Amino acid sequence: MFAHTVLRTTNKRFYATPKTLKELFPNEPSKPTMKTKVPGPETLKLRHSLDSFQDPRSNHFFVDYNKCNGNYIVDVDGNVMLDVMCQIASMPAGYNNPLLIEAVKTPQAITELVNRPCLGLLPDRSWPQRLRDSFLQCAPKGLSHVWVAMCGSCANEGAFKAAFMNYQHRKRGGKPFTPEEMNSCLVNEEPGTPKLSILSFKGAFHGRALGTLSCTHSKYIHKIDVPAFDHWPIADFPALKYPLEKYEAENKAEEERCLKQVDQLIIGMANSCPVAAAIIEPIQAEGGDNHASPSFFVNLQKILKKHDVALIVDEVQTGMGATGTFWAHEQWNLPHPPDYVTFAKKMAATGFYHTAETRASAPYRNFNTWMGDPVRVIILESLVKQIKEFKLLDVVQESGKILMDGLAEIQNKQGSPISNVRGKGTFIAFDMPTFALQDKLINLLRDSGVESTGCGVRSVRIRPMLIFQPHHAQEYLRILKECLASM
Amino acid sequence: MFAHTVLRTTNKRFYATPKTLKELFPNEPSKPTMKTKVPGPETLKLRHSLDSFQDPRSNHFFVDYNKCNGNYIVDVDGNVMLDVMCQIASMPAGYNNPLLIEAVKTPQAITELVNRPCLGLLPDRSWPQRLRDSFLQCAPKGLSHVWVAMCGSCANEGAFKAAFMNYQHRKRGGKPFTPEEMNSCLVNEEPGTPKLSILSFKGAFHGRALGTLSCTHSKYIHKIDVPAFDHWPIADFPALKYPLEKYEAENKAEEERCLKQVDQLIIGMANSCPVAAAIIEPIQAEGGDNHASPSFFVNLQKILKKHDVALIVDEVQTGMGATGTFWAHEQWNLPHPPDYVTFAKKMAATGFYHTAETRASAPYRNFNTWMGDPVRVIILESLVKQIKEFKLLDVVQESGKILMDGLAEIQNKQGSPISNVRGKGTFIAFDMPTFALQDKLINLLRDSGVESTGCGVRSVRIRPMLIFQPHHAQEYLRILKECLASM
Repeated sequence: MFAHTVLRTTNKRFYATPKTLKELFPNEPSKPTMKTKVPGPETLKLRHSLDSFQDPRSNHFFVDYNKCNGNYIVDVDGNVMLDVMCQIASMPAGYNNPLLIEAVKTPQAITELVNRPCLGLLPDRSWPQRLRDSFLQCAPKGLSHVWVAMCGSCANEGAFKAAFMNYQHRKRGGKPFTPEEMNSCLVNEEPGTPKLSILSFKGAFHGRALGTLSCTHSKYIHKIDVPAFDHWPIADFPALKYPLEKYEAENKAEEERCLKQVDQLIIGMANSCPVAAAIIEPIQAEGGDNHASPSFFVNLQKILKKHDVALIVDEVQTGMGATGTFWAHEQWNLPHPPDYVTFAKKMAATGFYHTAETRASAPYRNFNTWMGDPVRVIILESLVKQIKEFKLLDVVQESGKILMDGLAEIQNKQGSPISNVRGKGTFIAFDMPTFALQDKLINLLRDSGVESTGCGVRSVRIRPMLIFQPHHAQEYLRILKECLASM
Repeated sequence: MFAHTVLRTTNKRFYATPKTLKELFPNEPSKPTMKTKVPGPETLKLRHSLDSFQDPRSNHFFVDYNKCNGNYIVDVDGNVMLDVMCQIASMPAGYNNPLLIEAVKTPQAITELVNRPCLGLLPDRSWPQRLRDSFLQCAPKGLSHVWVAMCGSCANEGAFKAAFMNYQHRKRGGKPFTPEEMNSCLVNEEPGTPKLSILSFKGAFHGRALGTLSCTHSKYIHKIDVPAFDHWPIADFPALKYPLEKYEAENKAEEERCLKQVDQLIIGMANSCPVAAAIIEPIQAEGGDNHASPSFFVNLQKILKKHDVALIVDEVQTGMGATGTFWAHEQWNLPHPPDYVTFAKKMAATGFYHTAETRASAPYRNFNTWMGDPVRVIILESLVKQIKEFKLLDVVQESGKILMDGLAEIQNKQGSPISNVRGKGTFIAFDMPTFALQDKLINLLRDSGVESTGCGVRSVRIRPMLIFQPHHAQEYLRILKECLASM
C-alpha cells in the first residue's frame, strides 16, 4: 500500500537503479532525432485521407506506435521525439512497455476483450480479486469503495450523481422514495428531480459532458454554444504568486478571500438550489497549472463539512504519481478523507473512490451498461505493480527536482522569457510572456524533438511519464535552453 | 455496403448455411444444462467478496467467460444458459468468437492497447484506413462522418453538443465568436452559454450522464434525486396497440396526436429556450419496447425540418442488425438522412455519424482526451466482416420470424398470460399481466437455462446476438412454453 508511504525527498539517488528501468526499455533512444519539420509530409498525406470522414484539425502528427519506445514517440515521418505531453498526461509507464504487453496478451485479457461483460450484472469470476489487485492497491486513505467508468468526464459525472443521491438520501432520513418523487422525476420535475447544484472554481476543467462542462471554466473553446446548468455557483480559485514561498502572506490572503466566497456562495444557494458537492482539482491543469496551498484545501474541507457539502477531489490529471505521491491530495494532510476522489488518464481505468456510506441506496441507481472496461483494469493492475517494483514515485521526485532546479536557473538569468516556474513532482509548468510566444516555443520544441503542449493562456506544461528519469530531465532542459536561445 | 441492401423476407433458408456458423462455434452447447438454482453458491460467495469494495446488488451471477460459447453463457456454478439478454443487448456475435480472438491478438491490437493514443491529436498511422474498414463499411446512408466516444451516454452527449454548436453556428451565419460570447461562456452566462434545449419523448432512454439523463424518462430508478435540465420539452411517444396492423386507424390517430404535440412544444419553446435537436429511439427499448410506424418518423422529420431542429436517431440499442437491417431507421425510408445517428453496445465502438456540414466550426470544440478506443474499432472491423460473411442480417430475419410466429401462437392460445407480442428482426418483446408475473417468469426462465431481462413495467424482452439461429429460437420457445405452463 505505497499510497501512504512517506517518500524521501533528499537529493540522493534513492530511486530504482537505472539498470532496472534500463532493462525495461533496453532500446530506448538516448535523444531525439529529427528528419523533417513537424508535421512532415507523411502526416500531411494521412490528414488529407482522414479529412473525408473525420475532423483532422486538432492532429499534431500521425504516430508509428510500434516504433515508439519508453519516453520517445516516433512519427510517421521517422521523427523521434522526447514526449513530455504523453497523450495529455495519460501515458503512465512508457511506450511499448513490455510488462503491459505481457499483461494484455494473457488469456484472461483476451477473454475480457472479446466477451465484454456488463460488470454490474455479469462480471467474470476474477473480478473481485482483480479489483483487490488493482484499485485497492492504490486506494486513497479512508476510501474503500470504487465505482468504475470509461472516461474522466463520466468519472466526474458519476461522482456528481453519487453526491446528489447521497444528499437527498440524508435529507429524507433514509426513508424510501415517495410515489410523488417516483412520478415527478420521470418528467424532470420536483420533488423527484430536485434543484441541487455542484460548486466549481473559475479556471477549472472537469470534463466535457453536459454536467461536467457546467463545472469547466478553463477555455471558451470547450464551452461556447453549449447550454449549462447556469445557476450552479462558481467561486474564484486563488490566483497565487510564484514562487509560493516568497509570497506567503499575499497568497494566504488571496486563499482566504476565495474561501470566504465559497462559504458565501453556499449560504446564498441554500434556499434556491442547495450545493450538494464542490469539485476541485489539486492543481488546476488545463486552466494553467494553478496551485493552492495544503491549508487552502484543509480549510475548504472544513467549510464544506460545516454546510454538509461533499468534497469531490478531481485527480484525473494529478492522480497516479505525477506530483510525487500517488494522489496529489495526500500532500494536504486532510483530517478527513475527501468524499469522492475521481480518476482517469494514467490510471487506464476511470471512476471514483468513495466510502461504504455513500453507496447508492438501491441497485441500478448509479449504473450503466458496461460499468467500466475490465481490460483497462488488467492494465491498471500491471501499472500498480510496476510503480512499486521500479519505485517510480521516487523517480518522479528526483526527476522533478532536476526539472525545477533547471527551470529556476533559466528563469533567474537576466532577460529570461520564462517566469512563474511552478510544480510538484514532474507536474510542472512555466509561463511565456504572451500566448504567441508560448505557441512559438511549443512549435520550436516540437521541431527540435520535444512533444509538449500549453495550458492556460501562456503557460507551457510538462507532463512526462512516471519512467521519466534524471537523464530525460537533463535532455529536456538542454533542448529547452537551445530553443529559448534561438527565439 | 450491406447497410442499404434489400433483404429478402421470404421464409426460405436464405441465410448463411448452418454449416458455416457451425464451424465458427463447433462446440456450442445444443441446450442449457442447469446444476443449481441461479444465483448458485459460488456466485453467492463471490458477491460476498465483492461487497466490501463494490456494490453487488445488481449482480445476476458471476460468469466463467472462458467457458462461454456462442449463444451460451456459463456461470461459476457450472450452469449453462441460452443467453437472450446478451449483456443488455451489447454482445454481437457470440461468446469467445474465434475471429474476434484472432483480431485482438494481432500486433496492431496489442500496440493500440498498451499505447493508448489521444485519437484527436496523435492517432496511429493505421487510423484513417481503420475507419474506412470499420465505421464506413456500415455508415448510414447520407452520413459520411464519424465522431467516436466510449459509451452510449457520451455518444448521445456528443451528438447534443454537435447539434448545439451547429445551431448557434447557423444562427450567427458562420461569423466568428464575439469577445462577449467567449467571456460569458466561461461563467455559464449568455450569450456564450445559450438557452437551448433537446426535445425528448416520454418513456425514452438515452443514457445516464446529466445531459442525456435529462432526456431519459423510462424508469424512476435511473433519475430520482439527480437534477436535470428541467425546462427541456418532453413529448408523448405514441402508445400504440398491438398487433400494429389490426389497430392501424387508432394507431395513426395516436401518432398524429403526438406529432402535433412535438410541433406545439417546439413553437412554445422558441422564445425561452429554443429546441436545437430532438432525440428518439427507433424502438423505445428500456421504456418497454414501444414501436412507432415508419410514417411517424417520416412526419417527425418533416416537422423538425420545418422548425430547423436537428433529428438525432439513437440507435444505441437498435443499431447493428438486431431489427433485421443494419440500422433500424433504414426501414422508415426517410426522404433525408437523419442529422445524427448515435451508436454503442453491439458496435463495440461508440459515437455518432453525421455529415461534413455539421462538423464543428473549429477544432477542439467537440473533443476530449481519448476520443474513443482504437481496440474497440479493431473489434468493430471484424464484426462488420463477419456480418457480411455469415449473412447475419438474414439470420436475424429468419430467427426473428420463428420467434414472432412462435410467440403469436402462444399468445393466441386461450387463457395465455402473454400479450402484445411485438418486434422487428429478433428485437422482440411481449407483456405479462403484471410486474410480479414478469419478474416471476424471468426468474423461472433463468432457473430453466435462459438468461433474459424485462423492460418497461411488465414486458419481457428478447435481445439475442446476431448468430442466434432458428434452432436457438426453437429452443427458447420450448423453454418459454414449459415455464409458462408451470406458472
